[in-house]
Amino acid sequence: MCQLLGMNCNVPTDIVFSFTGFQERGGRTDHHADGFGIGFFEDRACRLFVDTVSACESPVAQLVRTTPIRSRNVIAHIRKATRGRVALENTHPFVRELWGRHWLFAHNGTLEGDLPRARGRFRPVGDTDSEAAFCDLLNTLDVRFGDTEPPPANLEHAIDAWAATTAERGTFNFLLSNGARLYVRCATQLHHIVREAPFRRAHLADTDFEVDFAAVTTPADRVAVIATQPLTDNEAWTPMAAGEFAVFEDGRRVA
Amino acid sequence: MCQLLGMNCNVPTDIVFSFTGFQERGGRTDHHADGFGIGFFEDRACRLFVDTVSACESPVAQLVRTTPIRSRNVIAHIRKATRGRVALENTHPFVRELWGRHWLFAHNGTLEGDLPRARGRFRPVGDTDSEAAFCDLLNTLDVRFGDTEPPPANLEHAIDAWAATTAERGTFNFLLSNGARLYVRCATQLHHIVREAPFRRAHLADTDFEVDFAAVTTPADRVAVIATQPLTDNEAWTPMAAGEFAVFEDGRRVA
Repeated sequence: MCQLLGMNCNVPTDIVFSFTGFQERGGRTDHHADGFGIGFFEDRACRLFVDTVSACESPVAQLVRTTPIRSRNVIAHIRKATRGRVALENTHPFVRELWGRHWLFAHNGTLEGDLPRARGRFRPVGDTDSEAAFCDLLNTLDVRFGDTEPPPANLEHAIDAWAATTAERGTFNFLLSNGARLYVRCATQLHHIVREAPFRRAHLADTDFEVDFAAVTTPADRVAVIATQPLTDNEAWTPMAAGEFAVFEDGRRVA
Repeated sequence: MCQLLGMNCNVPTDIVFSFTGFQERGGRTDHHADGFGIGFFEDRACRLFVDTVSACESPVAQLVRTTPIRSRNVIAHIRKATRGRVALENTHPFVRELWGRHWLFAHNGTLEGDLPRARGRFRPVGDTDSEAAFCDLLNTLDVRFGDTEPPPANLEHAIDAWAATTAERGTFNFLLSNGARLYVRCATQLHHIVREAPFRRAHLADTDFEVDFAAVTTPADRVAVIATQPLTDNEAWTPMAAGEFAVFEDGRRVA
């Protein structure tokens, strides 16, 4: 199983604190050393950093940890290869363009059986179950809604329905974003937390590092963080239930 | 006008030497400080690094310059914004997936008039003439060839024909790759060089730096480099003619 990290905020926020703890799980505090990736949205466009070495050794991960990149929607993934060899094309998150905006997807778990590989305009570049599922989602949305991006409620319903069907094939925790919202589905393990005023100190669980969020935020800021396991050891994270589907916008859960 | 750099090789090769000189043009030896980007293919998948600050100041460019990433097809671009604001979604090169492989595109010049923005499955995320042209190319290939990737000769002919038509709208120097070949079109300024045994010493034109390629290659290696202006001052670069279209594969020109 892999490790997922997502962030959704009402103002562009850097993820250096959370990523510092998360990075430790890529080979140091956990055994997921088959690559990592992180995508940062700026409006409708996404910037992706990926590497096929472990997150705790990757110079790309080091850049991400030391360069504050501000974003309102971020998805990161640390890979333990189950289906698909260790290779660039098999490294999460995956990006595609639909309706003139980027979509970003990362998956934790394994889907069994035949994967819908070539139905529609989106085709996998690699050979993971995860990228095949992502392409199947985009093909499903493309067929269902055609050329016009639907209203958020319709989109949310379609993604939820697709996720429930796809989840019948295996273990399907995922994070998905189109730069406006962050969609989260839990199968086995995901936790979330919303940080807002009054902000407090937070201490990482994976390494001895602390930040006082009151010193680096304004009272209007709001940040939701989603992770496979809680990233801090002095805050109350909310565990998600099996089959739960959540949508985050502007740093809070909206559905 | 922007600066282009491309590399096509018969074995995975790092581009650190060429990029060291190229990076200087992003704000230091030339005035192109509106962002930079570089994409590296590994087989059919492409890894993209982009930034909206100048290449000579970007920590992302610094990572690229100090981390040898081996690739057989590379495209880099330094931007001077003409159409489209300075933003992530307007930063070259652009990536899309077609036929289960990534395509990478960068443009130097300006296309005038209305851009074909929403015809077909590929739509621009940003508002540059360049990304609109790239989407138009992929839509053209998609309509022409459907679900099946055509043989190289048919593909080359289609790209050449599309380029000639599109070039009627302005200045159209571009680099394009699908991970197998590097397609090059010259409108005003492009130069290329093929390095092969016996390898010699090369000295950068933009900064005082030299490498002895004989010490870092094997006799079977072959590397083609394409750039807006020659990157070295002690080698013979071949200037391309206005309207010339070239295809590189395995480090040599094949068409």
